[in-house]
This record gives sequence, C-alpha cells and structure tokens, in this order.
Amino acid sequence: MEYKNLDKAEAYSALLKDEKKDIKTLLTAERVKKSEVKLGGGLKYNWAAMPVDGKIIKDYQKLADEMELVEKYKAILSGEVMNTGEKRLVLHHLTRGNVLGKEVWADGEEKGAFYKEQDEKIKAFSASVRNGSIKGSTGKKFQTVCQIGIGGSDLGPRALYLALKGWAKGANVKTLNAEFISNVDPDDASDVISRLNLETTLFILVSKSGTTQETLTNRDLVLDVLKKAPIPGFDASKHMVAVTSKTSPLAKDSSMLASFFIDDYIGGRYSSTSAVGGVVLSLAFGYSTFEKLLKGAHEEDVKALNPSVKKNGALMDAMNGFYMRNVLGYPSTAILPYSQALSRFPAHLQQLDMESNGKHVNRNGEPIDYVTGPVIFGEPGTNGQHSFYQLLHQGTDIIPLQFIGFKDNQRGMDIETAGSTSQKKLNANLSAQIVAFALGKNDENPNKEFGGNRPSSLIYGDKLTPQALGALLAHFENKVMFQGFLWNINSFDQEGVQLGKVLAKKVLNGCEGDEVLKAFADLLI
Amino acid sequence: MEYKNLDKAEAYSALLKDEKKDIKTLLTAERVKKSEVKLGGGLKYNWAAMPVDGKIIKDYQKLADEMELVEKYKAILSGEVMNTGEKRLVLHHLTRGNVLGKEVWADGEEKGAFYKEQDEKIKAFSASVRNGSIKGSTGKKFQTVCQIGIGGSDLGPRALYLALKGWAKGANVKTLNAEFISNVDPDDASDVISRLNLETTLFILVSKSGTTQETLTNRDLVLDVLKKAPIPGFDASKHMVAVTSKTSPLAKDSSMLASFFIDDYIGGRYSSTSAVGGVVLSLAFGYSTFEKLLKGAHEEDVKALNPSVKKNGALMDAMNGFYMRNVLGYPSTAILPYSQALSRFPAHLQQLDMESNGKHVNRNGEPIDYVTGPVIFGEPGTNGQHSFYQLLHQGTDIIPLQFIGFKDNQRGMDIETAGSTSQKKLNANLSAQIVAFALGKNDENPNKEFGGNRPSSLIYGDKLTPQALGALLAHFENKVMFQGFLWNINSFDQEGVQLGKVLAKKVLNGCEGDEVLKAFADLLI
Repeated sequence: MEYKNLDKAEAYSALLKDEKKDIKTLLTAERVKKSEVKLGGGLKYNWAAMPVDGKIIKDYQKLADEMELVEKYKAILSGEVMNTGEKRLVLHHLTRGNVLGKEVWADGEEKGAFYKEQDEKIKAFSASVRNGSIKGSTGKKFQTVCQIGIGGSDLGPRALYLALKGWAKGANVKTLNAEFISNVDPDDASDVISRLNLETTLFILVSKSGTTQETLTNRDLVLDVLKKAPIPGFDASKHMVAVTSKTSPLAKDSSMLASFFIDDYIGGRYSSTSAVGGVVLSLAFGYSTFEKLLKGAHEEDVKALNPSVKKNGALMDAMNGFYMRNVLGYPSTAILPYSQALSRFPAHLQQLDMESNGKHVNRNGEPIDYVTGPVIFGEPGTNGQHSFYQLLHQGTDIIPLQFIGFKDNQRGMDIETAGSTSQKKLNANLSAQIVAFALGKNDENPNKEFGGNRPSSLIYGDKLTPQALGALLAHFENKVMFQGFLWNINSFDQEGVQLGKVLAKKVLNGCEGDEVLKAFADLLI
Repeated sequence: MEYKNLDKAEAYSALLKDEKKDIKTLLTAERVKKSEVKLGGGLKYNWAAMPVDGKIIKDYQKLADEMELVEKYKAILSGEVMNTGEKRLVLHHLTRGNVLGKEVWADGEEKGAFYKEQDEKIKAFSASVRNGSIKGSTGKKFQTVCQIGIGGSDLGPRALYLALKGWAKGANVKTLNAEFISNVDPDDASDVISRLNLETTLFILVSKSGTTQETLTNRDLVLDVLKKAPIPGFDASKHMVAVTSKTSPLAKDSSMLASFFIDDYIGGRYSSTSAVGGVVLSLAFGYSTFEKLLKGAHEEDVKALNPSVKKNGALMDAMNGFYMRNVLGYPSTAILPYSQALSRFPAHLQQLDMESNGKHVNRNGEPIDYVTGPVIFGEPGTNGQHSFYQLLHQGTDIIPLQFIGFKDNQRGMDIETAGSTSQKKLNANLSAQIVAFALGKNDENPNKEFGGNRPSSLIYGDKLTPQALGALLAHFENKVMFQGFLWNINSFDQEGVQLGKVLAKKVLNGCEGDEVLKAFADLLI
C-alpha cells in the first residue's frame, strides 16, 4: 500500500481540471431520487444538491482507488499502526463488532474479546443499578448518573444521551437522568451539583490517562462535596465508578465502586462506542439500547468497506467534503440537524472533525501544500434558520451544508395547527431550505435576490432510533477517516493540544520567568 | 454624511498596503499592559495579541474617520432611518438609556418614553409574580417561567439567563427557573413540557410580528396541553403573557394575562434589552437585575461614541475584525469564553453577527466587491481546548479568536487541589492559550511544531455580573454595527431568511407543481 500526499495523485489533478458544475442546471426531481445511497441503521445519504456530475464522480472513484482509501480502512481494521504519531493501533470500529472477521492482538490480548468483556461488565453492572440490586450508600435506588469527563469523554456521550432521551420516552424505556460535568470552571460543577440528590446519584469518572487536569479537579471537587454531605451513613465510595485504561493511576484506585476499561487504541473523540459512552448510556437507557446503537454503527462500518463511491455513503460524503474544500476552496461546513434531539451532535462532530483533520503535516510529519480539515459548526433547524442562515443564503462566502432529518418525531407528542403537524412543518422547512440554497431566486431588488448554487447534502431516515444514531455516528467517523487518508494525515493524534497544557502548568508554577505569559496571567489571576 | 463602499475608501487602500506584522515580533509584556481600553461594566478589551502596530492603528483611525463610523452611530441614536431595506429606525440603544440625550419620535410617540413605559410595566408585573400577589390559576405561586420564541426571541434571552443564573446563586438573588421552547420540532416542546409543573409555570409568548410560524405552533401545542391538564380549576389564560408589537394580532388576544410591547425599530437579534429579554429576565431574577444589565449596556453605548479608535473598544474590535477579514483574508472567527455561564453566548453572537452582516449588497441594494461578515462559532473554554483547538493551533487555516475571561467565578464554590483552585486553573489555561496561539513553539518534530502568529483578543473583567454582561452584549452589538458601516451594508434587515419561508409554505400547500421541491419533500414527509 502506498501513502502519498494528495497533490501527488493524478486523479486529483483531473478533478481540479474538471468543469465546475452549477447545481441549478443539474438539479431535477429525477436526480433527487437517484442520487442517494443506503447507510446503516435505515438511513440514506442524498447528494442531489451537490455540484457534482457523473464525470466528477468518476474522478472521485479514481481518486479513491488511487489513494487506496478502502484499503487503508482495512489496514485500520486489521490492527496496523495507523496512528503513526503515537505509534498506536486504531480500534474504535472493533468496539461495535469485528468488521473483517480477523482477530486483532495487542498487548498480549485479543482486543475484540477485551472490548466484549468490558461490554459484559457494563451489561451486568447497569442491570444491577437499574433494577436496584446495587443501591446508593444510604439504601436508595440510583436515579441519576453524572459523568465527569471532558472532550471525547463528554461531547460524544452527552450528544448521544440527549439524542436518545426523547426516543426512550417515546418507546417507554425506563430512563435514569444523566448529567455531565466537564469544564474546569468551578461554576460548571457547582451548577450541576446543585441539581443533584447525592443519595441517588452515581458518578462516572472518565479519563483514559487518569491524569486529565479538568477531570481530576472536578473529581476532587465532587468528592469534597460528597464527603461533607450531612447525610448519616453516606459513603462516597459507593457513589463513583471509573472508566479508564488499565495502566492509569485511576485503575488502581480502590475507592471506586467499579471500574471499566478502555485502552490507548481508542481516541477520545472516537470513544463513544467504547466504555466511555457505554457506561453512561447503559445506565441511562439499559444495555440493550446501547447494544442497538453498536449494531447501527457496525452496519455502517460494514457498508464503508464498499470500494464503490456510489455505494459507500461515508466515502461519497468524504469525497464531496474534500471537493468542497480542496477544489472549490470553501473553508467551513455547517451541520444542520432538523431534530432537536441532535442539539449537541454538531458540537460532537466539531471535535471529531476538527481535532482529527485540523493538521498541517502528513502522517510522516512532513509539511503539506494543501488545506486539510474545515471549520465545523452548526445548530438544529429550524432554530438556525432564525439565526445564521441569513449569511448562508446571502453572505459573500459559500458554506457547504450537511442536513439531517427524520420523518417522525421521537416523543409522539404533536399537534395539527394551521393545517399541518409540527413535524410536517419541520420537514417542510428542511426540504424548502435545500431547494432555496440550491436554486436561489431572481428578484428585481438585489437585496431580495438569492444566488443559489449553495451546496448541501442530506442524511435522512424514518426516526432517530439507537440504530440510526449509531449509524449516523459511524458515518461521520468514517467520513473523517477517509478524508484523513485523502490528505495523507494522521487523523488519530492531537499534538496541537499539548503546548497549551505545558504553558498552563507554567502559569500555575508562577510563569517561570516568562514575562509575556506573566503579563497575560496578571490580567486574570 | 457620506455612504460609500469600503473599496472606495482611501484609508482602506493604505491598510491593504501596510506591512503585515508578525505577532511574535510585536508581543512583549509591555505591549500586553498597554494595548487595552476600558469597556462598560468594568470590562477591558485587550488587543496585544493582534498582528497590528502603531501604523496600522493610525490607518484604522483614518478609515474610521473617513467612513464616519461614529457619525453613523450618532445617526442611529438620532432616529434616522438606518435600516434602509425595511425603511425603519434602529432603536435598541434607546432601550437602555438615551445616549445622545436627544428625543426620538416615531409613530406619534417619543420612543424613549415608550420603552420606559414597558420597563415600568415589567417592573410592576415581575414584582407581583415574584412576591406571589399574582398567582397561577389554582392559587399556587409561580416557580418557573417558560419563554416560547425563536431566533432573537430565544438565543439572546436564553444566553443571558444562563449567564446570570450562577451570579444570582452566588449573590443570593431569588431565582425563578426559566425554560425555553423554540424549535418547531415537536420534540423540543414535548421535552420542556415534561419538566414543567403546569400549576406553577408562567409562559411568555414572544413574537414581534405575532405571525412567527414556529412560535404560534408551539403556543398552540402548549395551550393544547394546558387545556387538557387534568387539574381542577386550572385556567390557561392565567398562565400566559405576550411580548409583541402593538400592531400584531397577538396584541389583541384577550386570553393573555398581560402584554408587553416592542416595536419595529428593535430587530430580533438586538432585542435582548427590550421587553423580549426584559420580561423573562425580570421574572427570573427581579427587575433590579435586569436594570443593572441595562446600565452596563448603556455605559458601553456611551463609550462607543468616542471617535478615537484606541479609546473605543467596540470600534477597535470592529477594526481588528475587519482587518482579519478584508486585509488578511480569514473567513471565520471563534468566540471562546472561559466561563461556563457563557455557554450559549457564542450561539447568540453567531446570530447577531452572521444575520446582521452576512450580506451581499450594500445599504442601497447594490452589489459589492468585497467580503462581509465572517462565520462565527465557539464553545466555552476549557471545553473547546479538548475539542476543536487542535485545528486552531495546527490546522492549515488561521482562525482569529475572541477570548473572554473573568478573575472570579460566579457561584463561590471552588476547591484547591494540586496547589491551585479550579478558577486559577481555568485562567492559567486561558492565558496559556493566548500565548500559545501567538508565539507557537519550535520543535524538531514538525508534528509538535506550532507556527504561532494566530491572532486573538481578550475581553476580561473581575466577575460576570449583570453590569458586565450588559456591557459585553452591547460591545458586540456595537462592534457588529461599526463593521456594517465599514462594509456599507444594512446590518438591520434579514431578507435572506424570506425565501425559505416562502418555499416551506409551498411544501405545506402540496408543492404547487414544483417537482424538485416535491422530490425532496417526498423523502421526508
């Protein structure tokens, strides 16, 4: 297998030379029906409103083949050291099933079995908490779980919890309330703690390394509150579990009610389907719900093996995103879910994409001459329509859009008013927006003129279920992975976060003679 | 006064020719101390880590003078028709005090008195609700207020409520819980309603026009729930107030407990200091808290009159932002508050900035040849550090950053661990990040190399109080206003949101023969 930079690929030169297409001339009802591919979990990816024709898609295929994108995905699945910066395997796919059916060994153990073992522990533990056989220290059933973690230990699990809360309500799945503490700002922990009944709360401490400054600080803050709680018989050690790696200092902490393990082969932003997401989601909704999410993700992982761009949604999405970025030169992408349940999903994708692909050197650490990951932002529709869509429609820059929508709502509460349900109004808005962005509108008054030709894609399905959510999550993970291969970068390390950590320690040590640093610290401390 | 396009300004040509400066060579401890200006509310704006020197700032001043930025602000304050697209006055400054001391008349009334009258009504009504002399229909005191509104009726008020909750806790200010329903997705209303005790909840229906599809739909959904509530003696009309314009259909709705008025001269995204924000904030925290917020905003509005760029924080911030966008060519800006209380403030600024300045024609509706408003996104620090900062530090694009920080936390709960408090760790991180972005770090391993020269500014103060928050809000409003003047656009209309509304109606009418629209609608409905 060859690893070469994007600008060394022949098919990339071809794509740069391909005639630029106008969405307005391409878009027909027929094209809408034809331009889509099935994802896992009952979802579909539709690219009808992207400015790409058959010739461009043929060149996508050539580029995907030339850059051996699917082969590189198989290398990940086979347990090759694809995180070149940290010299690690990349095994998040394995947490939801073995895609290639090939055993992956590391550190003297078969990793599929290791993840399975953790899931079995999660299954048994969450069942005991949910059925009340494991209780709080004062004999009360746990009603709330509170995850303490930051970054990948927060954004993904939180987004997924919020995405499933309404589904659980609609499906009558018993739910434990989940809360999240992440920021080192003490106002974050203080706010969350003020909402908690300590006797019925189980804390989940999540840090792979066991050394994350924010997470350990918040643990200490929580433990301080727990230990001072004026509740007779209260015992803090019956109210906290850990999710960490076996080699971390936390793994040896005997004051935990239970511990669940991850390893160095699961990056934080890819950890939602490991114990990092599994513990909190299984406690909140039951293990069987988490299992369905894994199933949806696995389905999508299998589909991502298809070498044909037109039959592989993650690959097609990756190529479209790359085309927007490197050929058309658009620097950002908006994620627009028409589903309030996905309110924090864009924040998760922001980490997933920008931390994975915001890189300036290739996988061998050599400088590259082309742009990599875009800025990712987004809010749910229709809220965004009343906020930043003005710029999306009529601003001077073009922002490619990724819409997400579902035929049905999750909770089953709806009302018909002015001739239609809320759900129908929601989706009428979504379809209207795609067309408005694509086709625009002429007007004598230039202020009311819409240029159109603003590209978008749509992921859609019947309902946001655990399976659909798992597939949606895996879709974006695999999209980001394929783009990382295209750019020949390492999507699995994050050296860019180190310098800030080092300098923050320096500030806490009195700035060690660094005058500029001290001048800024003096403004704030 | 002259209105001309940016590219007709001599000082703009001069700025384009000015030598580009390197932050690394500019930044010294002395510069950090000198490069700042006082804002209202005890805040300061520091631009030490911006790549601008004395020559560039002199040219800022020339451009500000040539484009008559402060004069145009005075024209707004004087009641000129500065919303040229909709032929309206722009009066949000007047909701927090008369900056010029000059009366503004419209529609046969003195507008300052009109806003004051609404505030008096809000003061009396909120006091009665908070002291229990106005009760729910079953005789119980109101404990929760729930705002139904979208866009400017949601994002600003919600961001401000969240920003003050911790302050109120720390200052022992009695607080009514506030909830918000915005999205037409029925899962939004359903989720919020499931958390409410209807007997003790007061709904606030907010729509200036009284015709907003989402808001009316959610009102109907809420009323349906209220009317079906199996509570003896429950009367829905005792549980809802309206905030609307006097001429809207809602103003005539006699089923409301009370009505508070705004007018066409307050744009949605500028309405947080009108009754749109005033009712919910006064109910939640008391009118005197809202009054302090107005005072902070007014202080900042007065400071924004200063014609000297170096003495006018909003003007300096506007010039820096313009320089990043039009001279250095950076297409987006990140808002990074190191304060969990400001968790939704970036979402408010996203609307404020992108809806105001995402325009492609000048104020006369003529096409322009330069870029206007940037993409705005952001999350609180330190959370963002564990998410998208990788791209900010090492991505291939430069993203200018706006940091916000406070010496003290709001709630007063903190702990010293590993030698420092959480608050100190928070601010150590903030100062570290500014320096890391500005100066970077050399390393033999290019993957661990930080190029630096990544521009940032810092707004900081002692504590996020109502006054500081008001000033922060007004600072960004005025910054966006000054930038709109620079670009010679109308920052106060939003024609770009119309087409989507028209097409959504078309979908609800069966697509009226529009085949492409129908093809998309068929995927979702």
